[in-house]
Amino acid sequence: MKIGRQDQHSSAICASNERTIVVRGHDLVGELIGNIGFTDHIWLLITGALPTASQRRILDATLVAIAEHGLVPSVQASRLTLAAAPEALQGAVAAGILGCGSVVLGSAEAAGQFLAEIAAHASTDGAVDAAVARVVGEYRAAKRAIPGYGHPLHKGLDPRAQRLFEVAEQTGTSGRHAEIAHAVQRLLPQLLGRALVINVSGAIPAVLLDAGYPLRALKGVPILARTASLVAHLLEEQLRPIGFVLSHAAAQAIDYDGSAPDGFVPSRDS
Amino acid sequence: MKIGRQDQHSSAICASNERTIVVRGHDLVGELIGNIGFTDHIWLLITGALPTASQRRILDATLVAIAEHGLVPSVQASRLTLAAAPEALQGAVAAGILGCGSVVLGSAEAAGQFLAEIAAHASTDGAVDAAVARVVGEYRAAKRAIPGYGHPLHKGLDPRAQRLFEVAEQTGTSGRHAEIAHAVQRLLPQLLGRALVINVSGAIPAVLLDAGYPLRALKGVPILARTASLVAHLLEEQLRPIGFVLSHAAAQAIDYDGSAPDGFVPSRDS
Amino acid sequence: MKIGRQDQHSSAICASNERTIVVRGHDLVGELIGNIGFTDHIWLLITGALPTASQRRILDATLVAIAEHGLVPSVQASRLTLAAAPEALQGAVAAGILGCGSVVLGSAEAAGQFLAEIAAHASTDGAVDAAVARVVGEYRAAKRAIPGYGHPLHKGLDPRAQRLFEVAEQTGTSGRHAEIAHAVQRLLPQLLGRALVINVSGAIPAVLLDAGYPLRALKGVPILARTASLVAHLLEEQLRPIGFVLSHAAAQAIDYDGSAPDGFVPSRDS
Amino acid sequence: MKIGRQDQHSSAICASNERTIVVRGHDLVGELIGNIGFTDHIWLLITGALPTASQRRILDATLVAIAEHGLVPSVQASRLTLAAAPEALQGAVAAGILGCGSVVLGSAEAAGQFLAEIAAHASTDGAVDAAVARVVGEYRAAKRAIPGYGHPLHKGLDPRAQRLFEVAEQTGTSGRHAEIAHAVQRLLPQLLGRALVINVSGAIPAVLLDAGYPLRALKGVPILARTASLVAHLLEEQLRPIGFVLSHAAAQAIDYDGSAPDGFVPSRDS
Repeated sequence: MKIGRQDQHSSAICASNERTIVVRGHDLVGELIGNIGFTDHIWLLITGALPTASQRRILDATLVAIAEHGLVPSVQASRLTLAAAPEALQGAVAAGILGCGSVVLGSAEAAGQFLAEIAAHASTDGAVDAAVARVVGEYRAAKRAIPGYGHPLHKGLDPRAQRLFEVAEQTGTSGRHAEIAHAVQRLLPQLLGRALVINVSGAIPAVLLDAGYPLRALKGVPILARTASLVAHLLEEQLRPIGFVLSHAAAQAIDYDGSAPDGFVPSRDS
Repeated sequence: MKIGRQDQHSSAICASNERTIVVRGHDLVGELIGNIGFTDHIWLLITGALPTASQRRILDATLVAIAEHGLVPSVQASRLTLAAAPEALQGAVAAGILGCGSVVLGSAEAAGQFLAEIAAHASTDGAVDAAVARVVGEYRAAKRAIPGYGHPLHKGLDPRAQRLFEVAEQTGTSGRHAEIAHAVQRLLPQLLGRALVINVSGAIPAVLLDAGYPLRALKGVPILARTASLVAHLLEEQLRPIGFVLSHAAAQAIDYDGSAPDGFVPSRDS
Repeated sequence: MKIGRQDQHSSAICASNERTIVVRGHDLVGELIGNIGFTDHIWLLITGALPTASQRRILDATLVAIAEHGLVPSVQASRLTLAAAPEALQGAVAAGILGCGSVVLGSAEAAGQFLAEIAAHASTDGAVDAAVARVVGEYRAAKRAIPGYGHPLHKGLDPRAQRLFEVAEQTGTSGRHAEIAHAVQRLLPQLLGRALVINVSGAIPAVLLDAGYPLRALKGVPILARTASLVAHLLEEQLRPIGFVLSHAAAQAIDYDGSAPDGFVPSRDS
Repeated sequence: MKIGRQDQHSSAICASNERTIVVRGHDLVGELIGNIGFTDHIWLLITGALPTASQRRILDATLVAIAEHGLVPSVQASRLTLAAAPEALQGAVAAGILGCGSVVLGSAEAAGQFLAEIAAHASTDGAVDAAVARVVGEYRAAKRAIPGYGHPLHKGLDPRAQRLFEVAEQTGTSGRHAEIAHAVQRLLPQLLGRALVINVSGAIPAVLLDAGYPLRALKGVPILARTASLVAHLLEEQLRPIGFVLSHAAAQAIDYDGSAPDGFVPSRDS
């Protein structure tokens, strides 16, 4: 059946014939393979144009920053899945990517939306602090967390965030969104009653939006970065498996508090 | 319950404390962010060591080569999924990655295994042609396709494959696996009775294995590359949606040939 | 790292030892297998108690109603995925389930939330029509669609919805939520300026909530039902494949409108 | 591009028009909703015909048997995913289903294939024991595990398997595949040198194939059953979350054994 009212039927990403593949207007074989890096290609695919050196360096920095942080939930889900289904590495990667959500890892997107809302208000009336207060107030009223601030481990400071802002300064791309991100950090104690530092998921959209990366592709950055990490963990899982060790330890941490037939004694190992 | 016999419980990828994140022995913030590119980081995560310039260029070339080829099945599955579930971009990416299978896109892994089997036999007795004949014969006996050869569109020649071998020559990394890949192409007419050219999924493992990339992480290359393409398609899907146009056209191509109550006339639109 | 503040560590669903598996307090082997139906077991797993005959009939009716509607986007995504990755049927099922989103198929959950909000207001002040007007007004103000109303194919009437309300009348479980669902349909012309009929995703939460099924498990109903449909389509895909026919027809419906090198002519087949 | 040689373009599962939805030849609204159970509908969708009472009871018994077994890897992956991405319940279900693999949960398919191979040989020459010896020998030669035998927790006997064979006796559907499954169990000590009992994933294909359920849809049974379990666990995860408790306990069980900068002390909590 025909769902929705989609009346355009074009795509501007790729076309090909038997001899040539055109990607974003470029001849893939004649111009791109062997001549540009993967990060250039990511920027080209997403934005339609090759990046400047500064744009490439910012995108590289964000991808390196968010790729790996140990045995986090998405990595665990992925390794458990490979242990159970070794025939399909793509399934284990997919399981890991599904954990790039609004709470963990995927919050760069929500933080970008938050910064962009403040930027929109600030560009109208020029006053960043007032725009911050307004948008933070709206989030509080809707009982929404402020995305991109605070971290369970890096409490005093998320060193990755600080380093990303430093790189943005060095490349000369730092701009309005970085300014807003810091204004939020400065104002949160009075607006929320407690201090929260910018975390890596707050810094990523700030430096990327300042560099011209599109808002609605922000979630692609943690997803791409984490995919690299997942491939590394899944290679290790093949060579030195821990999937069932993870699973066993996790299950041991949970008690059964439902009812049971008389005399039933749960196994510690089930 | 305790499944399997996994008796080691270590990982060598990442450790952290409140101030420092260590990735593969390097201080993530102090050494890596802003100083290395994403491709370097991918190689580091997967192999445990930073790549040489040649290794980086080969990995870049393969990722650029395989990222995008238009509205292929995995891209369609991803765009259909975002159209139906716009609240979860990660779900649409995951749906696309699940199509990196043994038939489409994921065959680089099988092709790498095929080349490695031939290399193992050839290293024992020195004769590449005999090793090719033996392994191709085993695949034929098991009615398995020869992975990495032939392409539905690029029939005479897959220009991406040719370009990858050219880059490998330029970087000086070309070696035994590229030699074997070409020997297979040369021998297939007599072994199979028909000519098939090396495709991009045959060239990728050849040049990567020659450069020292690990066999069991080969599938990560098309998965990572395709993730970049999916993010680009999903941004376009948000801005210029075609998901339901794709779905409508696909459904129109299929007839119903089951039974039906008397007098029932199917809608062309259902 | 420790994420969030989860301070309880119990589950009440299952416990086991070497001889016995306890599910929701029942001995799985001694009491359940062979003695109850799958629908009973679904209700037991989700709610903690076996259903009454009426509850079972309502849940059966909703699962049967929503399972299958032809080559919809989620089914297409699933068949495309199996064609590309036949080694992992679970991946193809997962790709299909990922399309149970807020726009297509998954809207039963949003519709249930909508009906529950109206019910909460109505229970306070007793007036259903006023509660409907209030909540519809809030949705309009937030530019949200009214979930559970209107259908692209079944415009005059969604016959599945009507049948579900009929079954609910027969089982005597019909109650406040069905009443509200109909009040919404009656009031929409004046509140929205156009008539929209209750669709199957509006009827499912109405009859299930009236029967005592939990709100936050509503999305499980289309997911479970669609999983049955996906298994059927994936068996057919193995026996009479159409995955690449779907993909080819879909790609043919889309034009390339990006730039290209001079003289490039895209293949109709790429 | 056109992949593969698919030359038929029909489907026999569903057709519809504005008033009527036909599923497997039946009027969905007029005949099925409210009149048949979900298990009947599953059988109808998959096989094309409504089940007999015996077939329904067998399918019910297998779905009830395999649905739930506590915090197994697929359930953990699913709960971790919901904790990280609560906005997409379908993503958490998909992550769980991806763990229905060849090692855990999905082995019913491989066991069905194994039984079917023996049945094919036995039907030619009439001797079950010889056919068992031949196929077990082939699996040993290929270093493949015997699918459907042995269990990490239920070592002496998998009580679910025993119960399924009992139900098959009661319904009068027990036949050649059950006979073969038991012959394998009897012969394994001499063929493998150790005893292994039939587990639930061995019994499921035996009783289903005997009842006329199709071999290539066998994996659908654990997938469907587990989906019900996942919905229950994901409701509990919303009401009494343990996702991050699982994740924390799992991470604590793993040591870092890679290199690190001088003086670095990993946090126990990272």
